[in-house]
Amino acid sequence: MAEKVTIYDISKKLKISAATVSRALNDNPKISAKTRELVLKTAAEMNYKQNRLAQALKSGRTNNVGVIVPYINRSFFSSVIRGIEEELSPHGYHVIICQTHEDVNNEIKQIDTLLNTQVDGIFMSVAKTTQDTSHIKKALAENTPLVFFDRKKEVKGLSSVVIDDFRGGYLATEHLIKQGCKKIAHFSGDLNVEIYKNRHQGYLKALKDNGITPLKRFSLQVNSKLESGISAIKDLWEFDEKPDAIFSSSDYAALGAIQELKQMGIKIPKDVCVVGFSNEPFTKYMELPITSVDQTPLEMGKIAAQVFLEQIEGSQTLTVEKEVILAPKLFVRNSSNRKL
Amino acid sequence: MAEKVTIYDISKKLKISAATVSRALNDNPKISAKTRELVLKTAAEMNYKQNRLAQALKSGRTNNVGVIVPYINRSFFSSVIRGIEEELSPHGYHVIICQTHEDVNNEIKQIDTLLNTQVDGIFMSVAKTTQDTSHIKKALAENTPLVFFDRKKEVKGLSSVVIDDFRGGYLATEHLIKQGCKKIAHFSGDLNVEIYKNRHQGYLKALKDNGITPLKRFSLQVNSKLESGISAIKDLWEFDEKPDAIFSSSDYAALGAIQELKQMGIKIPKDVCVVGFSNEPFTKYMELPITSVDQTPLEMGKIAAQVFLEQIEGSQTLTVEKEVILAPKLFVRNSSNRKL
Repeated sequence: MAEKVTIYDISKKLKISAATVSRALNDNPKISAKTRELVLKTAAEMNYKQNRLAQALKSGRTNNVGVIVPYINRSFFSSVIRGIEEELSPHGYHVIICQTHEDVNNEIKQIDTLLNTQVDGIFMSVAKTTQDTSHIKKALAENTPLVFFDRKKEVKGLSSVVIDDFRGGYLATEHLIKQGCKKIAHFSGDLNVEIYKNRHQGYLKALKDNGITPLKRFSLQVNSKLESGISAIKDLWEFDEKPDAIFSSSDYAALGAIQELKQMGIKIPKDVCVVGFSNEPFTKYMELPITSVDQTPLEMGKIAAQVFLEQIEGSQTLTVEKEVILAPKLFVRNSSNRKL
Repeated sequence: MAEKVTIYDISKKLKISAATVSRALNDNPKISAKTRELVLKTAAEMNYKQNRLAQALKSGRTNNVGVIVPYINRSFFSSVIRGIEEELSPHGYHVIICQTHEDVNNEIKQIDTLLNTQVDGIFMSVAKTTQDTSHIKKALAENTPLVFFDRKKEVKGLSSVVIDDFRGGYLATEHLIKQGCKKIAHFSGDLNVEIYKNRHQGYLKALKDNGITPLKRFSLQVNSKLESGISAIKDLWEFDEKPDAIFSSSDYAALGAIQELKQMGIKIPKDVCVVGFSNEPFTKYMELPITSVDQTPLEMGKIAAQVFLEQIEGSQTLTVEKEVILAPKLFVRNSSNRKL
């Protein structure tokens, strides 16, 4: 490997002071555009790499925070990220984002990547496949604050901001009962994941509180995909006793359900009411807008950012452990509103 | 500031070798889970920060690449990112993502952030507000490969992967003419942005090739938002001579146009045909699925990644300058198909 090029080499070549070179490389407004251009050009020619990491090592702060989400293209996650950015940007922090595609192996790598780049904090919503938490404890071991949002794991010393998923499931089911529905099916997602388990519990409790005995066959684990919603409806309709409502823990599966029900000539909401979860933007764009439970993602991101700020601006030791639970909101639309 | 804690301090405290501490901190499988737990716990208690940046400084590689996009929640951009991830992951690279929200000031900060974290390369789609390119040239000055995708700037030495937007505009307009439309309006987006200018040129050329004189009033600069599509239709319908087709450079504006046209009792595609651009997933989910131009984002991401790999695995000097132009595809759906 060749000898590392320093600012002194550039200063020698251009016959200007090393201080001028350094200022030019750091966008100091005292330096003229012409000199700056010349320094940048020469630096490039000489294959110079600015030693920014060394600077970060000195100060101990990078002003970067990392966010780990399963998918960036789900409106819920991108809105939480927006909330984090809005809250942290005025404090001079930059947000870098990683996605796991629900794969715990990616999650392990992302945590390493973020710790490698010396982020000042990590925000994270865990993948569905995550069981073991030793990769998460690494952040604790390196004294990097980590705040969970939406999907969390129980790790002592770590804070979290979640919504009350039990209440979300309860609200949605109660609304369907008030529409006159008595045979309510539930598309639950993987019940090993806490949020889905809690929504399912809320569904069961609302049925119980209203004197309805839940039919086991009416609880289905369905992926958060349009196609999965379609096949779940096909499965349900193979039996004589059909549901009169679907409460889906996923808007995508709810959309699939609606498409399949229409295909079969079933009237929505007259014959079957449908409710989703997440309030994805498309739910209100549809010709038949879909009722959905909103998870207040922007607020969730902002509060997660505030928890981080409290931690980093407080004492150096991570003694703060906060658990914030937000209330979900039900948006009633035509897919379940029989009173329109 | 307190003295920095080193692995030697941990080794002394635990009465084990520094090499064992180092292996435990680096997940070496030779170390038992029990020892690893103990080292991690002690490291946390002693407020130890692993000197990973120093490691990166030594090796000169971080195996991280950065992607800068205007928005993470547009299907086009998230699909390009997916393509980059799929191509680079087998090579051991991790992808970190930043969004600019179309603000050049954010873009300047993101480039700095990525250069600060010593990424091995940057992929970027520039913000609409970006005029000056000196922040982009910084990557060149630091010899960090940068590959543009979709929205690029002319910077000597930098590669790009784009689609043929002129052809996309031409295809969409020609399709509308074949449906019998003669008064085709165009929602163009900001014409200072190259991609929108090229789509607009394609629209004009298709009209010309078919002997149709374009009406100036029929070319509108419309934001990529549902609401903007609605108000653009209102503006157009204030005149006596109405269009019989809308070609929108944005799927969101196309959706707004459809909603407003339906509101006015206009039949689609009988009275007015509508075509969008980007092939966002919602275009095919609608009850009236929307015709749209697909930009092959997954392929774009993969090819951008290949260009980066060629550059980084080739010679150290950035002499490679490649321009890849992909062909767009028109997906014809009910919003413009009169022959169904």
